[in-house]
Amino acid sequence: MKHLFENHDLETAACGEFVDMTDELREMVDRSGVANGMALVYSPHTTCAVVINERESGFIEDFQEMLENIAPRDGVYYRHDDLSIRTEGLEGDPHRVPNGHSHCRAALMGSASQTIPVIDGKLTLGKWQKIFFCELDRARQRKVFIQVIGEG
Amino acid sequence: MKHLFENHDLETAACGEFVDMTDELREMVDRSGVANGMALVYSPHTTCAVVINERESGFIEDFQEMLENIAPRDGVYYRHDDLSIRTEGLEGDPHRVPNGHSHCRAALMGSASQTIPVIDGKLTLGKWQKIFFCELDRARQRKVFIQVIGEG
Amino acid sequence: MKHLFENHDLETAACGEFVDMTDELREMVDRSGVANGMALVYSPHTTCAVVINERESGFIEDFQEMLENIAPRDGVYYRHDDLSIRTEGLEGDPHRVPNGHSHCRAALMGSASQTIPVIDGKLTLGKWQKIFFCELDRARQRKVFIQVIGEG
Repeated sequence: MKHLFENHDLETAACGEFVDMTDELREMVDRSGVANGMALVYSPHTTCAVVINERESGFIEDFQEMLENIAPRDGVYYRHDDLSIRTEGLEGDPHRVPNGHSHCRAALMGSASQTIPVIDGKLTLGKWQKIFFCELDRARQRKVFIQVIGEG
Repeated sequence: MKHLFENHDLETAACGEFVDMTDELREMVDRSGVANGMALVYSPHTTCAVVINERESGFIEDFQEMLENIAPRDGVYYRHDDLSIRTEGLEGDPHRVPNGHSHCRAALMGSASQTIPVIDGKLTLGKWQKIFFCELDRARQRKVFIQVIGEG
Repeated sequence: MKHLFENHDLETAACGEFVDMTDELREMVDRSGVANGMALVYSPHTTCAVVINERESGFIEDFQEMLENIAPRDGVYYRHDDLSIRTEGLEGDPHRVPNGHSHCRAALMGSASQTIPVIDGKLTLGKWQKIFFCELDRARQRKVFIQVIGEG
């Protein structure tokens, strides 16, 4: 079995940013020596997502607007942002900034990771598919874990 | 390591169609010779999803109605559908039809694939679970990639 | 290849409950002997989800409220709950209780499972990430399948 795992550091610019990881992923698949297996792109954060979709600016803005409608950043009360609520053993980060909307969006998307088959040493991404790290919080330092695993 | 990968072509009939892939998946698991491993069902499209749920017509229609409420097909402006917006390097398919709602739905569902354990040569699907290819755009020719991988 | 698979039985208390599986998952990874591979947490149910997020009570309640807005339990007609609709071959469980909202929520979240890399014998969960079994229906007996697979 062949196995390659790396962390890729990045810095996001704003809520709603899509960072295209496709080229880095392809390069890692080449380097892994895996002929047949899987590539897993994993976010170790609680207010981000990994998304497969088209690289098109209109869609990326439409998507952000839809998320604003579903879990608005402003004008909605989030218990997560009310630090006067302290539930024993369920307290989270005591230094957190108000980002209840980000947690709700991330959990709804349910996309901490995406898995893509690797066949004959190539990702099976479709013609218009790109893989993105998606920032659902604010400009931050982030990590993206990439794993390629399979037979050589 | 045993490995089997196939493309299954299909033609969808309309937006909101759920195509049941369960029998084809079970048959591939049998044929793969994998005793313990994983089955991955992957959509190489940007306006589709892979869904695990019950095969019940009422639910499938309820789900479509909910998506219509979240990202309506009509009566909403999608930047994706406005071909007068051209962002350098982020332009997408220049021949696309208006399907901004389909991209938003697909990204929200976050379900380009589903992974199911294979144990003792059988899928561990629950009693009411079926695996569906879900069309979020319009009647189209589609591909579904199925991969079964593990130890024999 | 090393492989460990187990069912973990649990009993949920109510709709919206998040059951933290992180400790059980870590313990299984230790016991599996897998150095580099993947851990898959899989729900064999059609009205549940597996979620990675922060263990913080405010967020868990915010999330439940958001789902109530998207697919309300009460005051909305679900075809799934109307047993007078019988579609040949698409009938589902004839003994089901009204839980159309639960199916819609589960399919939207698209999270029958979550996959986490295992590196040097450890899960790569981020600092605030916990893995939860999420009940979207009512208090019930449930199963959670956990699979750890990879090289020793």
